[in-house]
Amino acid sequence: MKNKKFTIIGGDLRSVKLAELIASEGNKVNIYGFKKSNFEIEIKESEELDYAIEEADVVIGPTPCSTDNETINAPFHPQRIFIKDIFKKMKKSQLFIAGRISEKIAQLADVYNVYSIDLLEREEMAVLNAIPTAEGAIQIAMEEMPITLHGSNALILGFGRIGKTLAKMLQGIGSNVYVEARKYSDLAWIESYGYKPVFINELENYIERANVIFNTIPSIVLDENLLRKVNKDCILIDLASKPGGIDFEKAKEMGIKTIWALSLPGKVAPVTAAKFIKDTVSNIIDELGV
Amino acid sequence: MKNKKFTIIGGDLRSVKLAELIASEGNKVNIYGFKKSNFEIEIKESEELDYAIEEADVVIGPTPCSTDNETINAPFHPQRIFIKDIFKKMKKSQLFIAGRISEKIAQLADVYNVYSIDLLEREEMAVLNAIPTAEGAIQIAMEEMPITLHGSNALILGFGRIGKTLAKMLQGIGSNVYVEARKYSDLAWIESYGYKPVFINELENYIERANVIFNTIPSIVLDENLLRKVNKDCILIDLASKPGGIDFEKAKEMGIKTIWALSLPGKVAPVTAAKFIKDTVSNIIDELGV
Amino acid sequence: MKNKKFTIIGGDLRSVKLAELIASEGNKVNIYGFKKSNFEIEIKESEELDYAIEEADVVIGPTPCSTDNETINAPFHPQRIFIKDIFKKMKKSQLFIAGRISEKIAQLADVYNVYSIDLLEREEMAVLNAIPTAEGAIQIAMEEMPITLHGSNALILGFGRIGKTLAKMLQGIGSNVYVEARKYSDLAWIESYGYKPVFINELENYIERANVIFNTIPSIVLDENLLRKVNKDCILIDLASKPGGIDFEKAKEMGIKTIWALSLPGKVAPVTAAKFIKDTVSNIIDELGV
Amino acid sequence: MKNKKFTIIGGDLRSVKLAELIASEGNKVNIYGFKKSNFEIEIKESEELDYAIEEADVVIGPTPCSTDNETINAPFHPQRIFIKDIFKKMKKSQLFIAGRISEKIAQLADVYNVYSIDLLEREEMAVLNAIPTAEGAIQIAMEEMPITLHGSNALILGFGRIGKTLAKMLQGIGSNVYVEARKYSDLAWIESYGYKPVFINELENYIERANVIFNTIPSIVLDENLLRKVNKDCILIDLASKPGGIDFEKAKEMGIKTIWALSLPGKVAPVTAAKFIKDTVSNIIDELGV
Repeated sequence: MKNKKFTIIGGDLRSVKLAELIASEGNKVNIYGFKKSNFEIEIKESEELDYAIEEADVVIGPTPCSTDNETINAPFHPQRIFIKDIFKKMKKSQLFIAGRISEKIAQLADVYNVYSIDLLEREEMAVLNAIPTAEGAIQIAMEEMPITLHGSNALILGFGRIGKTLAKMLQGIGSNVYVEARKYSDLAWIESYGYKPVFINELENYIERANVIFNTIPSIVLDENLLRKVNKDCILIDLASKPGGIDFEKAKEMGIKTIWALSLPGKVAPVTAAKFIKDTVSNIIDELGV
Repeated sequence: MKNKKFTIIGGDLRSVKLAELIASEGNKVNIYGFKKSNFEIEIKESEELDYAIEEADVVIGPTPCSTDNETINAPFHPQRIFIKDIFKKMKKSQLFIAGRISEKIAQLADVYNVYSIDLLEREEMAVLNAIPTAEGAIQIAMEEMPITLHGSNALILGFGRIGKTLAKMLQGIGSNVYVEARKYSDLAWIESYGYKPVFINELENYIERANVIFNTIPSIVLDENLLRKVNKDCILIDLASKPGGIDFEKAKEMGIKTIWALSLPGKVAPVTAAKFIKDTVSNIIDELGV
Repeated sequence: MKNKKFTIIGGDLRSVKLAELIASEGNKVNIYGFKKSNFEIEIKESEELDYAIEEADVVIGPTPCSTDNETINAPFHPQRIFIKDIFKKMKKSQLFIAGRISEKIAQLADVYNVYSIDLLEREEMAVLNAIPTAEGAIQIAMEEMPITLHGSNALILGFGRIGKTLAKMLQGIGSNVYVEARKYSDLAWIESYGYKPVFINELENYIERANVIFNTIPSIVLDENLLRKVNKDCILIDLASKPGGIDFEKAKEMGIKTIWALSLPGKVAPVTAAKFIKDTVSNIIDELGV
Repeated sequence: MKNKKFTIIGGDLRSVKLAELIASEGNKVNIYGFKKSNFEIEIKESEELDYAIEEADVVIGPTPCSTDNETINAPFHPQRIFIKDIFKKMKKSQLFIAGRISEKIAQLADVYNVYSIDLLEREEMAVLNAIPTAEGAIQIAMEEMPITLHGSNALILGFGRIGKTLAKMLQGIGSNVYVEARKYSDLAWIESYGYKPVFINELENYIERANVIFNTIPSIVLDENLLRKVNKDCILIDLASKPGGIDFEKAKEMGIKTIWALSLPGKVAPVTAAKFIKDTVSNIIDELGV
């Protein structure tokens, strides 16, 4: 990825770091949408949206792309930036990349003949994002627990990307790592990696020994029945998107401490998150051969 | 898995160990096909095939099931045991489980109304078998190399089940682990696990620093061109089934040491291999609810 | 350690947790010095110091034992508790155990014929305390750094107890771990454990690539000269007791972020710290055969 | 270490590899004592001992230096090479380095005014040698056991250099690692590193679950009493120098499989062993400032 022209529009600190990273690799980068921020930015912001986009090979929007399906998610820009205004100005040869492009925005792109790619649909991006998510989860656990993770019993619900990454790190710190899964092949992997496999049906037999439980499954696993078995000093950290995996209301009633931690990469490691976006953008460009 | 009746027919030491394991968990087990062996077996062999099968809930054949599609792979039985003779004697309520059930044998089972399941089609079996395969590969590397794996550069071609398992063990011993893959998401996982990712296109830049190369891809990767880059002291260990991933003839011409190591689980760890078969049989029975 | 009688006097949450742990193993425990705290304590506090001590086999003071060499470090007691008052009441058969018993207090113990043992002089205690210290250091690094520890360059100065423990955990999370040492045998161990050895003389060549530096050496290592090489985004975490290993004033002048983190076990993991005290007390009792 | 002149006399393949390594770093190297070998050696052997030694800054003998205290251990030389003949030819400014220099040889060196250094007295050499020793032990275990090390119970007796190195590697492969020690501080380290600590007094409670036992303690630990508890399928690998840690005679009587594996570095990884000698020689020269 060299000698390309990029335009970064909107977003938070990650977008700024992304711009600087891309520029540091010898590309030309315009940015737009950070006037209200107090970030120290090495790149001068474009005065006009038109000018910012004009020359670009690739236009990169934020993650998430929008919160209202109409305007770009640009918290540090003084005015609203309408997505259709961006698409209107884009030529057919230009690429639009952003995170979580909703169906509505995708349709809009089609209308304006803009080729758009959703970063979060890229498998490698999801895999890499599990790294800051797992670290963020560990940081929270360390902050909340009165015992060390070393020597503690850590139970992970689910063995997808986050479950796998988190299990490895916890093992590396010295926790006794239990991982719940429902597929026999996942249980085989869990055994192979040296964690203690917990078949979903046997969860209730293991839950009471946990000092910390990390959920990664986006549907209620810890219902009233299982919550009853949770040790009173146990911390519950939910990493799953809505609706999460814990019956939070019941947990609160029972006095169990729960934390619902979402969007960790941007919060705990914006610079690393920016690097992973850059790597993925680079892969996209290599694949397309643009 | 308790209070079931099993019949184990044919196979090698693994089958015997399997029989003993299943019996030790409180099941009734008949065995047939080991008269010529000098194994010390805790279970008395049935005199007649009929009798051996008669009462069984599950009949377990060897891995591989057959080498000629007609007779059971039973190297320690004085006569040939025809598969159709087994199927003839089986009732509809009985289950037939074995490893590598060819299409022809599967058809035969259909003809005789026998419900058959191939162990090697079970994903958890394949995952678990990667463990003795990886250990066997490490043993060979240790035997062949004049340097320690610790501190050496080990390059793994492919990041499937064996690649993943081998990478973890080599890292655990202290090798510098390089893993080649072609999917961006695999490269992301390789980075996440702390190995050095090698994109297929860049393989030639990494190959010369390798002290040992493990291939897990069943199609020629190390062709003449890449073999030329291999260090003269490097050992090549091919773990892939036919045709393997190395141009063995060219390698020989160039004086590069290659070892094609197949069917390692039964060779290096028959008792562990038996245990994994037992675990998988147990999963099959649980799933079927028989 | 069973059926003994203990008295716990003064200290913080660790002392309370220690009391509860010891009691939970079937020992009788008196406590004294927590009236002002709002801890939920399972054990009823003794009304009088005399009564608290009277029956005890072992009297356990806090860590540190005292901050003024005269009174017990008892922040949650409404009045001052003089150490000599405790010693006066103790019989020759009773043991006094506490952390950091100064020479002056040791002399006082001699005067009153009290057998005293300093917990922090116990090697196993120091080894175990390195665990919460290392975790605390990692927590701080995670909180302060805008990048993940995974994939970052972490440089540890010193390969004593904390250096060893921290290096293992950081490697487990996925950092590139560099460890500075001055003894050839330490460098050999560093290599053996898979970290990158940095000989003290070559420190200046490695320092600029570090994203985080953990110092464990209690004498200035990072002087003005070396600080000049530190990357501007690098975080410096000093874990060494006075005078620490960083020229903090110079670092401040240069705009380098430094954190001097002391007494981490009691702060980040009081319950684990209490458990380690209990284990050590148990070893002392076993050794003495009391 | 550059631009020095070395003479390598006697020894096995390690000495040849050492010579080549030292030469490859830009030093002049003479060799003597390999005429009967069929090694492919890149360096031409000196015709005469006198000439070989004459110009050298450092003369390096084999490990072990001698087996009879009179002649150099030179199995590939057609005649005996007397140590005193070497010392006679050496000047005061020349250094003699070899492994296991007996008291008698050291005295001889004194007589001839030769400054001699024993490689095996160097702590870093001993630490590094534990790496090939541990790998060799693992190779033997893999060859002898019918189960995988992954998932097996491995018990290590002693937590010195070999114990530490072996424990880490076995954990890396996926064994359940138990380590026996007698010092509380060692048990604390064992816990810290994530192995299962076994206090010497409790050894008999753990021994029966072991699938493989590695002894590193050079005095009988596994006596008749403990051997009785060993599982019949367990393999015993003794890595300790004389008298070893196993009552071999009793073990044989009981039908327990034992292997006494000595001098592994030179056997399993001569090239790595040579590298470690070179590193240590380099340290010696740096320290002496010659």
